[in-house]
Amino acid sequence: MFAEIITIGDEILIGQVVDTNSAWMGQQLNDAGIFVKQISSVSDERVHILKAIDEAKERADIVLITGGLGPTRDDITKHTLCDYFGVKLVFNPEIYKDVERLFARFGKTVTPVNRMQAEVPENCTPLHNQNGTAPGMWFEKEGKIFVSMPGVPHEMKGIMAYEVLPRLKSKFKLPFIVHRTLLTQGIGESALAETISAWEDSLAEKKIKLAYLPASGMVRLRMTTSGENKSLLEKNIREKEEELLRIIPEHIYGSGEEKLEEILGKLLLDRNEKLGLAESCTGGYISHLITSVPGCSAYYEGSVVTYSYGQKERLLGVRKETLEMHGAVSREVVEEMAKGVLEKLIVDHSIAVSGIAGPTGGTPDKPVGTVWIAVSSGGRIVSKKFQFGSNRARNIQASADEAMNMLRKMLLSTD
Amino acid sequence: MFAEIITIGDEILIGQVVDTNSAWMGQQLNDAGIFVKQISSVSDERVHILKAIDEAKERADIVLITGGLGPTRDDITKHTLCDYFGVKLVFNPEIYKDVERLFARFGKTVTPVNRMQAEVPENCTPLHNQNGTAPGMWFEKEGKIFVSMPGVPHEMKGIMAYEVLPRLKSKFKLPFIVHRTLLTQGIGESALAETISAWEDSLAEKKIKLAYLPASGMVRLRMTTSGENKSLLEKNIREKEEELLRIIPEHIYGSGEEKLEEILGKLLLDRNEKLGLAESCTGGYISHLITSVPGCSAYYEGSVVTYSYGQKERLLGVRKETLEMHGAVSREVVEEMAKGVLEKLIVDHSIAVSGIAGPTGGTPDKPVGTVWIAVSSGGRIVSKKFQFGSNRARNIQASADEAMNMLRKMLLSTD
Repeated sequence: MFAEIITIGDEILIGQVVDTNSAWMGQQLNDAGIFVKQISSVSDERVHILKAIDEAKERADIVLITGGLGPTRDDITKHTLCDYFGVKLVFNPEIYKDVERLFARFGKTVTPVNRMQAEVPENCTPLHNQNGTAPGMWFEKEGKIFVSMPGVPHEMKGIMAYEVLPRLKSKFKLPFIVHRTLLTQGIGESALAETISAWEDSLAEKKIKLAYLPASGMVRLRMTTSGENKSLLEKNIREKEEELLRIIPEHIYGSGEEKLEEILGKLLLDRNEKLGLAESCTGGYISHLITSVPGCSAYYEGSVVTYSYGQKERLLGVRKETLEMHGAVSREVVEEMAKGVLEKLIVDHSIAVSGIAGPTGGTPDKPVGTVWIAVSSGGRIVSKKFQFGSNRARNIQASADEAMNMLRKMLLSTD
Repeated sequence: MFAEIITIGDEILIGQVVDTNSAWMGQQLNDAGIFVKQISSVSDERVHILKAIDEAKERADIVLITGGLGPTRDDITKHTLCDYFGVKLVFNPEIYKDVERLFARFGKTVTPVNRMQAEVPENCTPLHNQNGTAPGMWFEKEGKIFVSMPGVPHEMKGIMAYEVLPRLKSKFKLPFIVHRTLLTQGIGESALAETISAWEDSLAEKKIKLAYLPASGMVRLRMTTSGENKSLLEKNIREKEEELLRIIPEHIYGSGEEKLEEILGKLLLDRNEKLGLAESCTGGYISHLITSVPGCSAYYEGSVVTYSYGQKERLLGVRKETLEMHGAVSREVVEEMAKGVLEKLIVDHSIAVSGIAGPTGGTPDKPVGTVWIAVSSGGRIVSKKFQFGSNRARNIQASADEAMNMLRKMLLSTD
């Protein structure tokens, strides 16, 4: 069973908006046993939209369309779908009631423009939108399914979760798709490929596909297989995973879609221990990652983001002489920051980061991208210098990844 | 002049990776006067890749392909391009030298797998990759341009900036494209559309297109026009902008691609005043946004992220009685947090946020999504309660946006 996703809207083509919807939809469809064949982003133009739908329908059984359903004039999806199916728009009193309810919730009355949201192509089954005024629309023609949804992420997600996916699951007998992702660290993509070459060859006989997904400082290995017999698929994948664990045990640090901050969270939760941070160049980003995990308050106490010498002294108790003698980006300062967190926040573990994120602020002996990281637990402290590149956002991301990984290693080494 | 972007890789289709490359490429191409007609993400399959290239070539003059150039076996773009052009791979000693240099920089020697990176289709012009081993490749056939680049964002960006865009600019006489985006606040998309309806009608005679781009709590309005006479285009856009400013002066708070954190940064920089934060439910995210702006250390001192009662007391001096009487999510506590920042960090302005990000932790009178925000400057303090939804990530984002906007308004009101 194949699906295609079509996103409509010039804002994606001119790069004003990153298309995050398609990735989310791809995940959901995959979990349901539906492969996405192609994702196409097209402009707000009638002819182009019609052509994209035609092309998609040739390759796939299900065509999911997002965008172009707003109340404004640049949104033409609904009229274009009427053209495509040769039908006209009709006013739907049920949808109008939904629109009224939504407006009432925010204490507003429905405007004429919003009344038009209740007009839908006469051949569609409207799909309830919990989070907005534009309903989703389900069409069937010549054995193919077409669904149109708003492009606003949380509106689309609600319609997918409560309307589209349940209908697809009840309509089709779908195969099982099993993915397994292993997270590797400390080995580059090509060295990894050479090391596991024979194992990779052996995947074919079990009809398992392998993909390498490099990210900052790590490579994710994703195995995928599909078929009718779920337990057999899972068994095959599990066996291959166990084989790989025997080949490169030192490089595998996690599995699945787990993020480093989730892995770290579990380690801390298991130990019933608390974490605190001191951030300088990462500016609160590590704290943001850690607090993006629901339930983190069980092990996370907080972060002190110090963006000046004065704050490092005041909030963390870093000594003025240390700052003056070594500069803020130094082993001595990150170690005092890490100790400062243990004392001031009264936590079991701390991470401290100080560096030059760039693009300016570098010096000949501390160029942009120089970052010192310290992790500390009780009497122990480990610190390390990194040299990243010239891009501010990447330096912040890489510092956060390395810092969390240093703490992960320290926690494991004390087991 | 039209371009199409094809991204190759199952990881995008199954949603393991969000395609951020295409948005960046779309922006760059647009600035150069090239419209992106379609973005297509296709699987790592030979036949599908060939078909996508064929379809793209029919619609566009330039086909930009990313992905599938890694050293591992799931990467098949290079062989597929050989099939497409009917040529074979040849070893290129120049590229090999680049690969060796790159490995030497990291103190490594070239492996056989990496030697293959120096093999390219014989009809291509290799494009130097500053940031990786896989070169870009430029092809010309029947008056069309085809470019293949790695999917790793910073490698692709380097090749685009230093190789592809300069070549396209020197090869074609490109039209000028002028965009102007105005940021509106405090009015919904449909109410805005009704208010500016007559103005929107008047854009057509100047050949200006308008798009509405709603985001949390604000709507961006983007005007686009293109032609030969750059100063005329700019004059037309400027006139329409001035007209709009007269129609909805109270709703326009910025322009261009400026982010709220950048607007805030400029306001603080102009005043030569300092900001500090106290974050609870936003967990460092506001600090992350503010420190994503280069040069922020001129006006930003830091953030105290307090994820427990104890830290609010210890680090910010919030009184225990206030916490016990009103709970952490209350006007009283955010106001003490905001005052605590002014005193402890010795700054001119502070923002404090405390709320229930979810998905758990809500109570009947403080459901998930309840957020209190206070902003304070010297003797003044303004606090406000918000009720967002049930999604953790969205609540964090919305809290950050509203908090920065409250400070923006306070700064402007004291002018």
